Amino acid sequence: MPITTPASRAQSSNQDPIWQLICEETRRDAQGEPILASFLHATILNHDTLEAALSFHLANKLHSSTASALLLREVIEEAFQNDPQIGQAIRADLQAVSERDSACQQLSTPFLFYSGFLALQSYRVAHWLWQHGRHSLALYLQNRISMEFAVDIHPAARIGQGILLDHAIGIVIGETAVVGNNVSILQGVTLGGTGKESGDRHPKVGDYVLLSAGAKVLGNIRIGDCAKVGAGSVVLKAVPAHCTVAGVPAEIVGECCNQPALEMDHNLSSKPSN
Amino acid sequence: MPITTPASRAQSSNQDPIWQLICEETRRDAQGEPILASFLHATILNHDTLEAALSFHLANKLHSSTASALLLREVIEEAFQNDPQIGQAIRADLQAVSERDSACQQLSTPFLFYSGFLALQSYRVAHWLWQHGRHSLALYLQNRISMEFAVDIHPAARIGQGILLDHAIGIVIGETAVVGNNVSILQGVTLGGTGKESGDRHPKVGDYVLLSAGAKVLGNIRIGDCAKVGAGSVVLKAVPAHCTVAGVPAEIVGECCNQPALEMDHNLSSKPSN
Amino acid sequence: MPITTPASRAQSSNQDPIWQLICEETRRDAQGEPILASFLHATILNHDTLEAALSFHLANKLHSSTASALLLREVIEEAFQNDPQIGQAIRADLQAVSERDSACQQLSTPFLFYSGFLALQSYRVAHWLWQHGRHSLALYLQNRISMEFAVDIHPAARIGQGILLDHAIGIVIGETAVVGNNVSILQGVTLGGTGKESGDRHPKVGDYVLLSAGAKVLGNIRIGDCAKVGAGSVVLKAVPAHCTVAGVPAEIVGECCNQPALEMDHNLSSKPSN
Amino acid sequence: MPITTPASRAQSSNQDPIWQLICEETRRDAQGEPILASFLHATILNHDTLEAALSFHLANKLHSSTASALLLREVIEEAFQNDPQIGQAIRADLQAVSERDSACQQLSTPFLFYSGFLALQSYRVAHWLWQHGRHSLALYLQNRISMEFAVDIHPAARIGQGILLDHAIGIVIGETAVVGNNVSILQGVTLGGTGKESGDRHPKVGDYVLLSAGAKVLGNIRIGDCAKVGAGSVVLKAVPAHCTVAGVPAEIVGECCNQPALEMDHNLSSKPSN
Amino acid sequence: MPITTPASRAQSSNQDPIWQLICEETRRDAQGEPILASFLHATILNHDTLEAALSFHLANKLHSSTASALLLREVIEEAFQNDPQIGQAIRADLQAVSERDSACQQLSTPFLFYSGFLALQSYRVAHWLWQHGRHSLALYLQNRISMEFAVDIHPAARIGQGILLDHAIGIVIGETAVVGNNVSILQGVTLGGTGKESGDRHPKVGDYVLLSAGAKVLGNIRIGDCAKVGAGSVVLKAVPAHCTVAGVPAEIVGECCNQPALEMDHNLSSKPSN
Amino acid sequence: MPITTPASRAQSSNQDPIWQLICEETRRDAQGEPILASFLHATILNHDTLEAALSFHLANKLHSSTASALLLREVIEEAFQNDPQIGQAIRADLQAVSERDSACQQLSTPFLFYSGFLALQSYRVAHWLWQHGRHSLALYLQNRISMEFAVDIHPAARIGQGILLDHAIGIVIGETAVVGNNVSILQGVTLGGTGKESGDRHPKVGDYVLLSAGAKVLGNIRIGDCAKVGAGSVVLKAVPAHCTVAGVPAEIVGECCNQPALEMDHNLSSKPSN
Repeated sequence: MPITTPASRAQSSNQDPIWQLICEETRRDAQGEPILASFLHATILNHDTLEAALSFHLANKLHSSTASALLLREVIEEAFQNDPQIGQAIRADLQAVSERDSACQQLSTPFLFYSGFLALQSYRVAHWLWQHGRHSLALYLQNRISMEFAVDIHPAARIGQGILLDHAIGIVIGETAVVGNNVSILQGVTLGGTGKESGDRHPKVGDYVLLSAGAKVLGNIRIGDCAKVGAGSVVLKAVPAHCTVAGVPAEIVGECCNQPALEMDHNLSSKPSN
Repeated sequence: MPITTPASRAQSSNQDPIWQLICEETRRDAQGEPILASFLHATILNHDTLEAALSFHLANKLHSSTASALLLREVIEEAFQNDPQIGQAIRADLQAVSERDSACQQLSTPFLFYSGFLALQSYRVAHWLWQHGRHSLALYLQNRISMEFAVDIHPAARIGQGILLDHAIGIVIGETAVVGNNVSILQGVTLGGTGKESGDRHPKVGDYVLLSAGAKVLGNIRIGDCAKVGAGSVVLKAVPAHCTVAGVPAEIVGECCNQPALEMDHNLSSKPSN
Repeated sequence: MPITTPASRAQSSNQDPIWQLICEETRRDAQGEPILASFLHATILNHDTLEAALSFHLANKLHSSTASALLLREVIEEAFQNDPQIGQAIRADLQAVSERDSACQQLSTPFLFYSGFLALQSYRVAHWLWQHGRHSLALYLQNRISMEFAVDIHPAARIGQGILLDHAIGIVIGETAVVGNNVSILQGVTLGGTGKESGDRHPKVGDYVLLSAGAKVLGNIRIGDCAKVGAGSVVLKAVPAHCTVAGVPAEIVGECCNQPALEMDHNLSSKPSN
Repeated sequence: MPITTPASRAQSSNQDPIWQLICEETRRDAQGEPILASFLHATILNHDTLEAALSFHLANKLHSSTASALLLREVIEEAFQNDPQIGQAIRADLQAVSERDSACQQLSTPFLFYSGFLALQSYRVAHWLWQHGRHSLALYLQNRISMEFAVDIHPAARIGQGILLDHAIGIVIGETAVVGNNVSILQGVTLGGTGKESGDRHPKVGDYVLLSAGAKVLGNIRIGDCAKVGAGSVVLKAVPAHCTVAGVPAEIVGECCNQPALEMDHNLSSKPSN
Repeated sequence: MPITTPASRAQSSNQDPIWQLICEETRRDAQGEPILASFLHATILNHDTLEAALSFHLANKLHSSTASALLLREVIEEAFQNDPQIGQAIRADLQAVSERDSACQQLSTPFLFYSGFLALQSYRVAHWLWQHGRHSLALYLQNRISMEFAVDIHPAARIGQGILLDHAIGIVIGETAVVGNNVSILQGVTLGGTGKESGDRHPKVGDYVLLSAGAKVLGNIRIGDCAKVGAGSVVLKAVPAHCTVAGVPAEIVGECCNQPALEMDHNLSSKPSN
Repeated sequence: MPITTPASRAQSSNQDPIWQLICEETRRDAQGEPILASFLHATILNHDTLEAALSFHLANKLHSSTASALLLREVIEEAFQNDPQIGQAIRADLQAVSERDSACQQLSTPFLFYSGFLALQSYRVAHWLWQHGRHSLALYLQNRISMEFAVDIHPAARIGQGILLDHAIGIVIGETAVVGNNVSILQGVTLGGTGKESGDRHPKVGDYVLLSAGAKVLGNIRIGDCAKVGAGSVVLKAVPAHCTVAGVPAEIVGECCNQPALEMDHNLSSKPSN
């Protein structure tokens, strides 16, 4: 809820160190760039909680003549309030970006500016709507996410926490796909179906998996925990845990470090090339 | 023309079973999701014909400060009215999505929400403008399609009917490309030229071809009827009919089922993997 | 500065043959397509210089509720005025598109309508802001470029002149990447980092390089002058000058013509296929 | 209907001299002021009939986030098509402005730019909706007219043809008011009710009446044909035909010229003052 | 707060009969006019309380490129939440319109569509900001109210409850004006200052006063309880309670009914004219 | 010109004490109300000169889908640059508001928020266009001013400097009207024509005249220097210098103080009433 007394405002951000840090960073930035000061105040500093700020920000990104920002914000707030796991996921995703993307110097940067983070949180709202039978509105959101962020995630897909969608353009995740926790997915990755029959037909991706840029994983196949899929690879059969696969079609080319999603090493062997 | 008496309204949709079905689906959805009710009425239920509804919907998607929705709608209606083949193509494309995309439960869903379907119909209008010498306006539309749907189709390209642009983000189709009927093209596919000379320099794609996610087909080469191009493949030479090609660069890896565009099986052999 | 007397107006365009040519083309188009006449006058014919026109046009593309078109135009003008090299680069880029893209018949077409050209010039403004320590505003622009053009270029990346971003959708260029002069980059190309450590971790691309559609170049590796990277290839190690590489992962497959970026021949051998 | 062949286009304007004249004037203006050329083409020259152009123009003025321009245009076209008297009234009103407003040099000027003319035609659409029981939409339009033009006309009021609303700001016309033909009403005029009972409680204004600036006529009283109400007057009782009334409260001060609405002489005696 | 469970939703409207009635009326209207259904759901039916709905509605009316609807809604909610008297005033004002405006058939009509009601509630927010020292934002709101509703109320003015601003266009209320409870003010009324010195210089209007259309009351003078000021009158000296004044300048012309603001009889004597 | 070095920026505002003062006030306000900080920076603090800031601000107020803010700003700048007298008039008008409106505490308040000041400066641009034969664009601006500010000034009217349009709603000034210097005009005032013949038919108002709220001055009559027209009066014959007139129709009721426009005393005798 956007309205609180100054006392409660201080208190609530004290209890949420991620939100506290975002506010501190933003306060500095607002002083340094007055052109963006009101944007930063309106989007972050005016709010007590990360959820209030994010509902404000996403509504501003996703609204259209079909659904106003005011209306979308109410829908987003409804999802955040009814499913507290979304709040946990948002924070885990923010930390994932911060830890794995070397270009990201501040927690507030993905929150404000990264299409991947914003598309993912928008999907979380669409997924909540889908779960509650509001398919039309979920499909409307899927279309808005696709048009604004060039990311197409079916609202029925199931995606864990601590997810990095890096650069994000062109990522496609199908209806029956499942993605575990702490996975990194780069631009141009497809988790696609195969065949025209309905039913379970998309990949099942384990924890700590790294899907490098442009990789296509097609069909109801399992990508084991801590696997790495090389850039540009096309995966048509299951990948065991801790394996690295590459090529078109992809073959096993080696073993992985412990948690490739966190290492973000896109080389195909343990020795860095070049 | 948007205005008719109730009698003619009933009649016209009776004669167009696709439009009749879309209206029935939409009536249910409008009752179930009041937040979208006016959007559904304004976009679908207010109209007598599929063409009237689609001109309304596309104008809303493509307008900008350069060309208002009202103005674009007149241009789109002019194209629809002067070239009745566009109307046939729209219906064939809708059926293609419905039959080949397992996630698509209703005909109204691609009509309302799928970037691939909407980008393709927008291209059909741009193509009509190009054929009639209105190159500036056609290029303006190409730019709007690119910015809204992340799909870049040159208005001079020739594309048949019964086309599925699945997920659509990143699809690029060049100036002298030709695409047959009943073709399925997935996200990230390029039908590109090679060389800087002008003239006929883009692929010629036959009927029932399946171009899987991320495939690049480059140069004035023929992809034979019922061929399949595997995901992530790079095709630099002609592909015979009924062949499956894959790899970077692509080689023949097998034969195809009868109509790969309809089967949507992205595996490279007849036996499903996994 | 947008205001001049008619005398100075004539003079200034006389001294800039590129701008003079764009104005002549546009005058013809405005007569042929009255629906676009005011757009063409407002965007091109009202202005004395290419810079004035481009600041007008980019501001119209990039504005949002966060930063108005009027405000953005001032920022863009500030960059153009303080760094005259941007003006040189704009002209070199325009000529690059004109010479290498066979579908491009007029200089005014990329200026008005090509996402790749417009995204690149927007990046040049963001880069100037980044160089002057205005990181927040530069990141805001990066996000706007990503959302409008589906192109993600970090404002810290260094990019030369005479660059063609062809079709552009899905191009990603990382923070420490360096791109030389007269390079051609096609849709879906990534110049990405590898590893999660900060520091110099992105590719260094020489002059006259051709990066074909969907190629991924990952890590702090050098792509030598006049090298060609085949479509869909994944490059994980350095490429010597004048070499052609292809495959996933990419290997050397041949030598190159003199300046592959200018030839735009995407075949992998000297003999055209098919 | 906006779409016709060039042949029918020429024919239709030939049969409507008012529309023909507006098009001729506009063609000249579009050449003289290229900044407005596209606006003039889109609003006037693109259309075959005055009704098509006006529905385009009013939709552009009245749309809001609640009802899009596309949707409003359909409503306006429905009214125009179902009640041909509106078309007659529009033409009579245009001629009234042209003949009585000395500052108006062209028929196209009030059509494009005069709030009074545009508010009046918008009311005619709201009135048609009200007559057909669509009270909510009529009240929505009344609100839009009030917010855009600062004119408040209840959609149930009945207003004749050949009406000039000069300058228009602050004109208020109540629910049961009736206004005859060929009446001139200036800025700030109220035709108001008195008492809080419902029922017939607003003025009945005859033909050729002149209501000067700021006049208030209150209650179910008759203003006879060819009467003149002086500026700033407050009329609380009936006014006989051909009389001039003035003052607060208004008293008879003289007789009138034949048709004061056409003469637009705001003096209170037959001799001009000064 | 917009988010509640269905149970609390039912409960809250049960406890507020005005809100309950508005919702019932709106439910009927939404069924009868599907074009407005989403607007009615978004503005009224989606909300639990009158305050939540009104903050939504006013934010939609008052936003501009300077302050977004989302931001304004937070400001409006802050005012409503911190000053519960505003909620009382809103309800008393709604009832005032309903009881005194014969054209108003439903409580939801002024809530949705009447400029006077909406301008007045917007002023209440601006007044709350002014009282809390946020003068810049209060003046910004005053400007927005003036531009949207053609009503100019200084945020420092003090205005009671049960107020009807009928038609509202042109109403001006100055900085030190005070208006009592249950007052009716018609279009074009000025409560103005006189002299250029600062300090207390505007009228003090008692309870149950009726200020008819176009009346100007100037200077720090008292208008006694239950007084009536005739339309078009100019009041330059105090008016005793229960008196009717009229004319330019205004003189006492009679006594009043008990509560002229409620009777809305604009005649100057007890006998109706005509 | 919006771009200068910090040195020139300081210098230019030093030479313009009015602009210097506005900037100082705004700096304080931006610190006190962060929600408006970016608006205040973008509108005032980013600019070196009052003219640059005002062209930015007016363009934001007057733009529409017909003419973008960017385009309008160029037109406004062209007027300001070619006619330096506009700059003088702006400053004289600002001082007039500041000295005569007791509610106005800061010079920046009318600049940012007062419809009368903004409508008047917009008229000055329209007048410059009219003088240079650009009648279509001038009439377009007149319409925009009328729709945004509820003020209707014909662009051919001639208006001096040091003008206060107080509250401004409903002010109408006709085609051949002339207004001297240092005049105060309140809301609802009409300077109207009489008769339907073209030619010189509107009032000529001398210097230091006060036209009180709702006054109507009709016909080609002279209002002498230092005259006062009482609120709600209707003036149909010439008014000698230094006279006070009042009533409907207006008669001479007394002499005036020296400069009634500056005194702003709306009483009709030298003794204050009450």
